[in-house]
Amino acid sequence: RAVKINTAKLLIFTAIFYVLSAFIIHYLEPEEFPTPFIGFWWVMTTVTTIGYGDYAPRTVPGMLYGMFLYLFGIGLIGVILGKIVDAYSYFRRMKMRGKL
Amino acid sequence: RAVKINTAKLLIFTAIFYVLSAFIIHYLEPEEFPTPFIGFWWVMTTVTTIGYGDYAPRTVPGMLYGMFLYLFGIGLIGVILGKIVDAYSYFRRMKMRGKL
Amino acid sequence: RAVKINTAKLLIFTAIFYVLSAFIIHYLEPEEFPTPFIGFWWVMTTVTTIGYGDYAPRTVPGMLYGMFLYLFGIGLIGVILGKIVDAYSYFRRMKMRGKL
Amino acid sequence: RAVKINTAKLLIFTAIFYVLSAFIIHYLEPEEFPTPFIGFWWVMTTVTTIGYGDYAPRTVPGMLYGMFLYLFGIGLIGVILGKIVDAYSYFRRMKMRGKL
Ligand SMILES: [K+]
Ligand SMILES: [K+]
Repeated sequence: RAVKINTAKLLIFTAIFYVLSAFIIHYLEPEEFPTPFIGFWWVMTTVTTIGYGDYAPRTVPGMLYGMFLYLFGIGLIGVILGKIVDAYSYFRRMKMRGKL
Repeated sequence: RAVKINTAKLLIFTAIFYVLSAFIIHYLEPEEFPTPFIGFWWVMTTVTTIGYGDYAPRTVPGMLYGMFLYLFGIGLIGVILGKIVDAYSYFRRMKMRGKL
Repeated sequence: RAVKINTAKLLIFTAIFYVLSAFIIHYLEPEEFPTPFIGFWWVMTTVTTIGYGDYAPRTVPGMLYGMFLYLFGIGLIGVILGKIVDAYSYFRRMKMRGKL
Repeated sequence: RAVKINTAKLLIFTAIFYVLSAFIIHYLEPEEFPTPFIGFWWVMTTVTTIGYGDYAPRTVPGMLYGMFLYLFGIGLIGVILGKIVDAYSYFRRMKMRGKL
């Protein structure tokens, strides 16, 4: 049960971090990111490492925040994926033991 | 055997989802994606996270569908890769036990 | 020993596949990829999923070959990475057993 | 303890390699990368495989260094991620044994 609560906390924290980043980049570079929604589109294409390049920070503060976002954001996705793989192999093992 | 059928189902579902997405994005933004084939090219470069940016949604509905596509589509690829790794380590273990 | 030979074969096959793809895309779209070197640059930025988009196929045959390249090429990288992780955990386990 | 020192060494080596690459690409293509900071932005968006394409090498020496950077740089990230997964499953196993 403790694991489930931690995963839920992590997902909520990640969601807040992504939405906040959308507002921060809109605030830092309002010309490149005219709405928070455009900022969110950039955040999501960045943390999934797609990186279309249709929107990208052009100033030093924007680039610094961008690097912070993707280094931290990719790490978060890594931890979440690690937890999914963890849970998957856990249930798999339980199932196999049940069959033995 | 049950695992093999599930993997086949998953692959068919993924293929249908990708082809359907090509038609949906062509319908949502016919100017950016003039043919379903261009839509499919965008879908495939997106779910593999290559993201050339030669074609990308420009409107709010297109971007919303784009986010739905890659969050769901990358997850599907993750599950498929997980199954491949799973199968690979399973056969590896079987082979090693056979040799012992 | 058998594993090492297979990995070597796989690496040689992958290298040939990448170089060949550079010539094929240069042949299919000589205007977009004026030299085989530019083709190779596109192949490498594609199979690593970086996808700058500075060069990308513009015609149906080029896009079809592009999809073939990255679906097959990313799979190859997945298998190679799987083998590296495999070898890594193998040596790790051997080392730990040696210490016990 | 030996593992921790090696990980620290690896992280320092990786950081130096990334910063050095920023200066090298600025030196090789000063027109495309007018400052080492722009070079660093390109290095970081490249090794994370985001690849916006807002900055990319345009000359043969720049492209050759680019390929060297991402083939080597992505490998480094792979080893670091491997170590994180390794450590994560190690502590997990320790915790589970402690509970048994
Ligand atoms: K990209
Ligand atoms: K990318």
